[in-house]
Amino acid sequence: MIYSIFTSGGTMIELTRRASFSAAHYYWVEAWTEEQNRRVFGQCANRNGHGHNYTLEVTVAGEPDPVTGFVVDLKWLKTVLEERVLEAWDHRHLNLETEEFARAVPTTENIAIAAWRRLEPALAAAKVALRKVRIWETPEIFAEYRGQP
Amino acid sequence: MIYSIFTSGGTMIELTRRASFSAAHYYWVEAWTEEQNRRVFGQCANRNGHGHNYTLEVTVAGEPDPVTGFVVDLKWLKTVLEERVLEAWDHRHLNLETEEFARAVPTTENIAIAAWRRLEPALAAAKVALRKVRIWETPEIFAEYRGQP
Amino acid sequence: MIYSIFTSGGTMIELTRRASFSAAHYYWVEAWTEEQNRRVFGQCANRNGHGHNYTLEVTVAGEPDPVTGFVVDLKWLKTVLEERVLEAWDHRHLNLETEEFARAVPTTENIAIAAWRRLEPALAAAKVALRKVRIWETPEIFAEYRGQP
Amino acid sequence: MIYSIFTSGGTMIELTRRASFSAAHYYWVEAWTEEQNRRVFGQCANRNGHGHNYTLEVTVAGEPDPVTGFVVDLKWLKTVLEERVLEAWDHRHLNLETEEFARAVPTTENIAIAAWRRLEPALAAAKVALRKVRIWETPEIFAEYRGQP
Amino acid sequence: MIYSIFTSGGTMIELTRRASFSAAHYYWVEAWTEEQNRRVFGQCANRNGHGHNYTLEVTVAGEPDPVTGFVVDLKWLKTVLEERVLEAWDHRHLNLETEEFARAVPTTENIAIAAWRRLEPALAAAKVALRKVRIWETPEIFAEYRGQP
Amino acid sequence: MIYSIFTSGGTMIELTRRASFSAAHYYWVEAWTEEQNRRVFGQCANRNGHGHNYTLEVTVAGEPDPVTGFVVDLKWLKTVLEERVLEAWDHRHLNLETEEFARAVPTTENIAIAAWRRLEPALAAAKVALRKVRIWETPEIFAEYRGQP
Repeated sequence: MIYSIFTSGGTMIELTRRASFSAAHYYWVEAWTEEQNRRVFGQCANRNGHGHNYTLEVTVAGEPDPVTGFVVDLKWLKTVLEERVLEAWDHRHLNLETEEFARAVPTTENIAIAAWRRLEPALAAAKVALRKVRIWETPEIFAEYRGQP
Repeated sequence: MIYSIFTSGGTMIELTRRASFSAAHYYWVEAWTEEQNRRVFGQCANRNGHGHNYTLEVTVAGEPDPVTGFVVDLKWLKTVLEERVLEAWDHRHLNLETEEFARAVPTTENIAIAAWRRLEPALAAAKVALRKVRIWETPEIFAEYRGQP
Repeated sequence: MIYSIFTSGGTMIELTRRASFSAAHYYWVEAWTEEQNRRVFGQCANRNGHGHNYTLEVTVAGEPDPVTGFVVDLKWLKTVLEERVLEAWDHRHLNLETEEFARAVPTTENIAIAAWRRLEPALAAAKVALRKVRIWETPEIFAEYRGQP
Repeated sequence: MIYSIFTSGGTMIELTRRASFSAAHYYWVEAWTEEQNRRVFGQCANRNGHGHNYTLEVTVAGEPDPVTGFVVDLKWLKTVLEERVLEAWDHRHLNLETEEFARAVPTTENIAIAAWRRLEPALAAAKVALRKVRIWETPEIFAEYRGQP
Repeated sequence: MIYSIFTSGGTMIELTRRASFSAAHYYWVEAWTEEQNRRVFGQCANRNGHGHNYTLEVTVAGEPDPVTGFVVDLKWLKTVLEERVLEAWDHRHLNLETEEFARAVPTTENIAIAAWRRLEPALAAAKVALRKVRIWETPEIFAEYRGQP
Repeated sequence: MIYSIFTSGGTMIELTRRASFSAAHYYWVEAWTEEQNRRVFGQCANRNGHGHNYTLEVTVAGEPDPVTGFVVDLKWLKTVLEERVLEAWDHRHLNLETEEFARAVPTTENIAIAAWRRLEPALAAAKVALRKVRIWETPEIFAEYRGQP
């Protein structure tokens, strides 16, 4: 018995879920002088930190299950986002409290890569294909990462 | 006389139009027990139904006409969306009142595929290339379908 | 010891928190014929139901506490919204599954009043002044209720 | 010669302008133990700080000038917001770098009051009536202050 | 037979509906020199015109009808907005094609007053109380008018 | 010394920045009669012009710099958008005041192509790869251009 008339092979769907987190950060390169940091990073070089309401968008891909119509259970995906990303980053100072940004600068670009690295193993273990991670730093700026080619 | 300085071959543009509809649905697999349905679908298995303000985003592709600058007449595209999708789905219960979801589960994934199937023939008849259908179920969740490869 | 330089009497603040829920509903007056219902309510009279992503905005008022700077603990307020409104209405059919709308029509106006009646006793018990309830049915339509004068 | 047909006395208009700033903060009461701070403020008590994209909405009121149709010159109002609020708060850590929050907790409520106190003298000097300040901490939470009664 | 449990006198609700229109305008005072116009109005004094996607928000107030639960029929209100405002202003140049702005400057403030004057008679004729008109010129700027006191 | 743990070759990121401008335009083909223009372009053929708040989204691609974590300096990118696009188009009438649309119709499609042509040389000169330009005419309509293949 086939419940879905929709999936007869090759019916690839991308499914995206958003989550938000609030974090502090600053931009600073240890090997540079204060003057160099200020010149390149401007206001972002303020080492007291400032912060953002970040939005994380995670896109997975697959064929919908012929019975459930699910590419992935969105409740499970929400839990993965919370356990892998939000618990580590929400209400945190990215430079001071995360391994990834102990040395690397927490730019939107690098945050997108780091989110991918946090999520991809958990999704792969469940045989879910991660397709894209998008991070919005403000409503005017976002970065996207699709993994290594 | 050439009006557009822009189109000299290979100038592919993607043009997207949004429309919204409000519908009820529930998730339920007939072959399963109530307990199975509840376990997999959670709150969505409530057979009284719940609902959403869905947003449909349709993307077509082509070269802008050298005279009008149109890939497609957006007024015509709006009419197609209304006649093919909104008349069937807006202010409807998807499980109880649509052919597609009489047996298949109306997940966001399946709704995206079904919208494609409703729109593609009308666009193909007008020689308009459908590129992508995106369905937002909430501002946090959307599915995209690009047709069979 | 005074921590807040801000509150020296009469410093009234309004604090608003949003929450969302997805529900089905229809508009129907039992005493009317189908024809009357269709004429007045149009598509909304479809008794299979349709649905919306509703947004609830709750506004409370008070002076910020001189130590904490809180009018109210927003974590507590979130719990109140969830326990009093979302547990009853989220992923529900308003006409079929709620006491308020067993007989009354679940218009946006009436939903705003019903949300007030659900929230006000819990807030009053905690000595928090409810000032306003706003319900968005779609991004184009909302109703506000401020209680009996 | 009368240019405006609109203003013949008593034509009160409220005019609102938005501006955004990104800042870090934490919630902490010095007189409390760490345990008390954690219990009341939860994740917000993390003294490394976290942050937000705040949105400031400033509402002024008056009769439109019969010649210009302006309640206030919005370019000037933008400059006031930038000079009085954004220069002090944007890309700053509110607890560590602002006078207002050296001791007071930078809750949304207190930030609204502090923004009013920064803006009101500049507007009053220009005979512009400040009516309301709204601060959004996230898209789900905002506080409003209308001054002392 | 009482259908609504909600309305037992004094249950005032405010109901708001949005509509959008796209129009061109410029700011110019005939009695002034070009230099004066440029100094006061800046870029807006460009007499070729520029334009906006305006959003009109209309708020009416009343007690919900005890049978229908309506303060007003929102389909009827939509028609009023279209006939009274959008037909006159949508896809128009406000300075060149509307009576109101033949001489008065089409600032957001004046547009709010003019929208009120267009809508109020139609609503009053239907015994609907107009409470507020809000005009958004951009997502950063809006004006509100509540009628003469 | 390696600051970024993230970039070890092939780590392609897409970075997007938004900017807004307000412009007037109309749709008109000189070689056509008024009747033809009205039939094809409808309200948009009104030669007094109407207008929009356009949003420009520019996407660049590259590997984050191993030291700064930047694909591109977003402050510099903002300046490029302002100098190349906003100075020419913001608060302008596209048909009457821009070279591109002196003869070509300023459809959303053509505006996307024209924005690409304005931006691409400045980005190429800085060895920044332009990947995509998106133009929103309204919140319901947008066009994307990715350059000649």
